[in-house]
Formats: sequence, C-alpha cells, structure tokens
Amino acid sequence: MCLVKMKSYKKELWFNTKNKIEFINITREVENAVYESKIKEGLCLVNAMHITSSVFINDDEQGLLYDFEKWLEKLAPKNLDYKHNLTGEDNAHAHLKRTIMGREVIVAITNGKLDFGPWEQIFYGEFDGQRKKRVLIKIIGE
Amino acid sequence: MCLVKMKSYKKELWFNTKNKIEFINITREVENAVYESKIKEGLCLVNAMHITSSVFINDDEQGLLYDFEKWLEKLAPKNLDYKHNLTGEDNAHAHLKRTIMGREVIVAITNGKLDFGPWEQIFYGEFDGQRKKRVLIKIIGE
Amino acid sequence: MCLVKMKSYKKELWFNTKNKIEFINITREVENAVYESKIKEGLCLVNAMHITSSVFINDDEQGLLYDFEKWLEKLAPKNLDYKHNLTGEDNAHAHLKRTIMGREVIVAITNGKLDFGPWEQIFYGEFDGQRKKRVLIKIIGE
Repeated sequence: MCLVKMKSYKKELWFNTKNKIEFINITREVENAVYESKIKEGLCLVNAMHITSSVFINDDEQGLLYDFEKWLEKLAPKNLDYKHNLTGEDNAHAHLKRTIMGREVIVAITNGKLDFGPWEQIFYGEFDGQRKKRVLIKIIGE
Repeated sequence: MCLVKMKSYKKELWFNTKNKIEFINITREVENAVYESKIKEGLCLVNAMHITSSVFINDDEQGLLYDFEKWLEKLAPKNLDYKHNLTGEDNAHAHLKRTIMGREVIVAITNGKLDFGPWEQIFYGEFDGQRKKRVLIKIIGE
Repeated sequence: MCLVKMKSYKKELWFNTKNKIEFINITREVENAVYESKIKEGLCLVNAMHITSSVFINDDEQGLLYDFEKWLEKLAPKNLDYKHNLTGEDNAHAHLKRTIMGREVIVAITNGKLDFGPWEQIFYGEFDGQRKKRVLIKIIGE
C-alpha cells in the first residue's frame, strides 16, 4: 500500500500506415511513456483516437495476426451494402472491425513498469489506414 | 507533469427507451459531468450498469448506427434456441450483443475536457429497453 | 466531491481450470481485494494476464454461460485452418474467443464498494485452460 500525491502524463503516437489494414506492436512506445511519466503505481490508458482503428493486447505472432485479419473479414466483410457507405465512405466495415478488437486498453503500472503477463503485447490495429491517425496514452498515478 | 491531490466524482444517467434496441449519443451528458467534477487531469469511466446494454465510442452517423444494429442481429440473432431464455427471459441475444459492443469506455481528461479524437462520440447502446436502466460516470483525477 | 491523497493496491488471482473452457465467478475475490485495499473512492482494474483468457461482466445464470460458450464456438470455431496453429499450438480459437469477451473490466469504487448495477457479476473466462494462469487486480484511489 502506498499513500502519495497524484501525477498525470499524456503522450500521443502518430501513425500513417502503408496498408489499409495493419497491426503494429506499440509496446515499446508505451513503455517509454511510462518511463517518461516517472509514475511508479497507477493506470495507463492507451486508446485509438479514431473510430476505425483499435488498441488491443494479444500475442506478437505473425500467424496469429494473419488469422485475426482473416477472421475480422469474415465477421465484418468489406463489401456488403452498408448504409454508412452511402455517405461516400467505404469504411463501414472498419468501424465494425474496430468494435470487435476494442478501442482501448488499460494496463496497471507497478514499480514503474507495465504489469504484464508473459505474452501480453500492445497493438495498434488499423482498419482504414493510409492516412494520419493518432493513439493517446494517458497515465495517472504516483 | 502535474503533482496534486486526488478528487473523485460520480454521476448516474437514467434511460427508458421507446424501442427495445436504441443508440443514444450521451457525449454532452458526460461532458457536463466532467465540468461539474472540476477535475482537470484524470480518467473518466462510463459504464452500463445493466448486462443487456452497452457504452461505446463511435461515429454519430445514422447510416452507421443502422449498420451496427443489422450487423449485431446477424452475429447474435434474437430468435435462436438460447438456454437463457428457458428462464422465462427473451433477452439472451441482448447479453451477446452488449458483449460485442462492450460494457464501458475510459476517456482521458486533459485540461478539464474529454481528450477526444476528431469523430469520437460516446453512445449508450440499449438491447433490451422499454424499462428503466442506468449508466454510471465515475471520474478520478485532479 | 472528495479531496485526498492517492493509494494503490495490487493482488493476483491464480487459476488452473479442470476444463479447457470455463467461466468462473470472481466477484467475491474482487470484493475482498477492494476491502483489503481500504480504498473508498477510485477505480478497480481486473484483467486477464494471459492472451487466451478474459475478464468480463455479465449475469451469473448457467443457461446464459452455456449460450456464451456455444456462441463463441460459432463465431470462432476451434477447428479451422489457423496459421497460428502451425507453430505447434492448437489455441488460435482461444485468442479469438478472448477478443470477443474482452481482456479487462474497470469497475468504479464508491463508498468502499464495487459500484455495480443489479445483476453485474465479474467472470474469469478461460479458453485454453488446464494450466496455471493469472488475473491482475489493480486499484487506485483514496
């Protein structure tokens, strides 16, 4: 148990992916932000700031990332008759895919580090890329 | 970096939707709660207090909300033989739909405002409405 | 509104399920952690530390838990040709199932208690069990 004053820290990460759909391991960038924050005990929020992309935690294994992409295409196919696409967009499917994968993760900070299990890695999931998009890191604690 | 004492603030929102399934933009109500809390740096939790409804972040575009409803009906159809419905309920599908959409969101507060990307809006997603249900807003920070 | 110093508290729960797929109600264990933390106002993070398991909130009704298992098998079947399984694993489906159910929940703490709606219960969702796995509880607040 610790009893101390609160700190907060904010950082943004920027992305502009080569492909429309891409998964990028951002664990190192989040670790750097935790280090910069000097916060030893607290919570770290990492969220996509766009509604066609995702932040999620899973395994950094290339086969699995391929499976995720194929699976998401099955659950939320690109080429269906979406009403949203009548606005001139073609990214309705990206809104749905991001919903499956989630907008955000919260990770505990213990002893100044991300308090992770053995295989947890943080990913940025892009579903409508090839343009500038952001992720927000917000840390509060001691 | 700021170094200050912690505050907390709580507020409940009540809903009683006209339809069984409905999406309601609650961004303004959450902004009001952040303003009332006087918290400048922190985290804002917004969660459904019921297990057949959802709080999620996406785009406030009517076509997209229509797509969400149709998509959820495909992934978790109302009229299947669910064991849960043997209890006399007819809302098993609503538990599943809420699972896809998520129970809660966490939004960073920076400079006294929700720290949002360009299109982020907070929605209450009702999947078994026509009765009184609640959303919890809990803010902690400085 | 309260204005106080911050505390943090951490606890791990261990599991070794009899079956590959299992849902375990851990509400009591989380309540105990909140009591031990002596935190009265704050946020409680509960997350799976493994990438083939989940922490989620829903109803403790056996028929519904059966429906969840059947539904997840339909959305993410065990026996498909997953690339991940070429690594010698057979748990690609468990990574997908956990993604649907979510890695974590955040629950508000108000007056020293989990601030829950009428039917909310916290579950550990195991999708690749029969081995030792952990859940992290991290609480910050006053």
